[in-house]
Amino acid sequence: MTLRPQARLTTAFAWWMSGVLLFAPSAGAQGSASAPAKDPLPAWYEGDSKRAIVAFVQKVTQPGGEGFVPAAERIAVFDNDGTLWAEQPMYTQLFFALDRVKALAPLHPEWKSQEPFASLLKDDVKAALAGGERGLFEILMATHAGMTSEEFERIVKDWLAVAKHPVTKRPYTEMVYEPMLELLTYLRANDFKTYVVSGGGVDFMRPWTEAVYGIPPEQVVGSMIQMKFELRDGRAVLVRLPEAEFVDDKAGKPIGIQRHIGRRPIAAFGNSDGDLEMLQWTASGAGSRLCLLVHHTDAAREWAYDRTSSIGRLDKALDEAKARAWTVVSMRDDWKTIYPVAK
Amino acid sequence: MTLRPQARLTTAFAWWMSGVLLFAPSAGAQGSASAPAKDPLPAWYEGDSKRAIVAFVQKVTQPGGEGFVPAAERIAVFDNDGTLWAEQPMYTQLFFALDRVKALAPLHPEWKSQEPFASLLKDDVKAALAGGERGLFEILMATHAGMTSEEFERIVKDWLAVAKHPVTKRPYTEMVYEPMLELLTYLRANDFKTYVVSGGGVDFMRPWTEAVYGIPPEQVVGSMIQMKFELRDGRAVLVRLPEAEFVDDKAGKPIGIQRHIGRRPIAAFGNSDGDLEMLQWTASGAGSRLCLLVHHTDAAREWAYDRTSSIGRLDKALDEAKARAWTVVSMRDDWKTIYPVAK
Repeated sequence: MTLRPQARLTTAFAWWMSGVLLFAPSAGAQGSASAPAKDPLPAWYEGDSKRAIVAFVQKVTQPGGEGFVPAAERIAVFDNDGTLWAEQPMYTQLFFALDRVKALAPLHPEWKSQEPFASLLKDDVKAALAGGERGLFEILMATHAGMTSEEFERIVKDWLAVAKHPVTKRPYTEMVYEPMLELLTYLRANDFKTYVVSGGGVDFMRPWTEAVYGIPPEQVVGSMIQMKFELRDGRAVLVRLPEAEFVDDKAGKPIGIQRHIGRRPIAAFGNSDGDLEMLQWTASGAGSRLCLLVHHTDAAREWAYDRTSSIGRLDKALDEAKARAWTVVSMRDDWKTIYPVAK
Repeated sequence: MTLRPQARLTTAFAWWMSGVLLFAPSAGAQGSASAPAKDPLPAWYEGDSKRAIVAFVQKVTQPGGEGFVPAAERIAVFDNDGTLWAEQPMYTQLFFALDRVKALAPLHPEWKSQEPFASLLKDDVKAALAGGERGLFEILMATHAGMTSEEFERIVKDWLAVAKHPVTKRPYTEMVYEPMLELLTYLRANDFKTYVVSGGGVDFMRPWTEAVYGIPPEQVVGSMIQMKFELRDGRAVLVRLPEAEFVDDKAGKPIGIQRHIGRRPIAAFGNSDGDLEMLQWTASGAGSRLCLLVHHTDAAREWAYDRTSSIGRLDKALDEAKARAWTVVSMRDDWKTIYPVAK
């Protein structure tokens, strides 16, 4: 994986300030259940982005129309970090890994004097990650491997049940974008099959995507580590090994899609250069296509970042979106609400 | 892949004789459409196998029952070669590869003097494969790589439209087992999601599984070769590379299932030792389970082979099935019909 987390979490004062604003009451944030029957996307302002989405769905579902696509071929793929849920100040999966290092530390006394763990245990994330991808890889393998697939699923669920985002103090599974939840529901109501296609770990996402996005485990594509089949007292288990298997990012995304789905999507949703090849792959099919980028333009309600961000950099893909007339959503201007109202 | 084809096709006289018998009229072969409403499996004789299947389905679908399984978790996985369609005298995918060698030979004058191709072009399959897996790998890579994913799909479809089984002279897609087609339909009618999980190439199967089995491309798990993302004149393609990526056989099957589906199946269907780990993985979950082996016992209507066959060997898995009381289907005694009636 090519996660490049930003520096010290403790420098997040600006984010905290923006986070406070998230709790201001906002109109229209009650979810699609209370929406007028005619508007499937009530959290979206009327504008070019919403019009492009609705026009696309109407076109591909119009029987006999020139843009019609049979239901079985209505495949829609969504990046996760920064497209369906927040990715700042750091990918959620990395927060998970850091918490796991602390939880596992008593079993690893050697970590007190061994980088990157020693710095992590002193809450110095910047120093821990100074070694680049090698240190990150060690953190991920130490926390994501060595257990069975079922044990890992339980660990993820238990963590998500209590973990809170450092800025908003909300559970991570509430740091999802209400307008995108509406979009998922709208597409499924029109017989689309919706997939997550993320650089994040597939086994980190599957335990919660069904409850949060309505996307079942078998429709999640992501990065993978190696596994080994074993019989333990006659019972079959899969043991997670500390070796990378597949990185579902950049050119890996269309490959992951082809391996897993075997059909070219007709709609793709991303937010960063890591999604560019997925959008190109989607755009290059015949017939009706929708390619959409979420542009993080809302420093007040979420975060504002694009061409120079170390997380979720959006640079080449933004240029290509403009050149190809893909839909670029401005979070500030297109979305009435960002997160669902707290329950 | 670990395909170990049997020897010369021209020695298939015995198979030819059995093939002739396939065209004898057989009762109850009209498919499930003409079946009494009460019997979802008309091509199955009443007996332990059919009773075990029906009892399992009733148990997992009985709301409030102790064996109830929610619809979303009703995952059923089927091996392909020898379980859903015939695998004798040689895997169909290998017939495809041999035909492709001949079709491509004009572009490869060097093959005339280069093994394994030289022998193949003289119809001496035995000599061509005398070198073991290395020769087989070269044949597979020469015929399955070097084109885009879309070009390969077209090649497979074009071949299947004209290719005929050497014994029965029927299209390969009619060499499927009518009782298993009924079983697929029966399970789906009870809200199961049905998957193919095969040692065969995923991209060789996906072009036809929907039409033949009612299983869409995204529910096919199989062996894979590597791919590369490319832009050609601005259009995104995936190019198939002559390198193995994943072998979906033996211990690879549960790994392929976990990677692709992310849920442990509750029902698994196989016919050989290559399916043993998939059945063990399925059997080891909590709650109601159905593990079933198709035993090729019908030399008159199909083929009879098990413990010593080079293709579809059923030895260890047969012992384990008996020890664990899994369901073992005898094709001769449990199935009224083998193949669908010719259209």
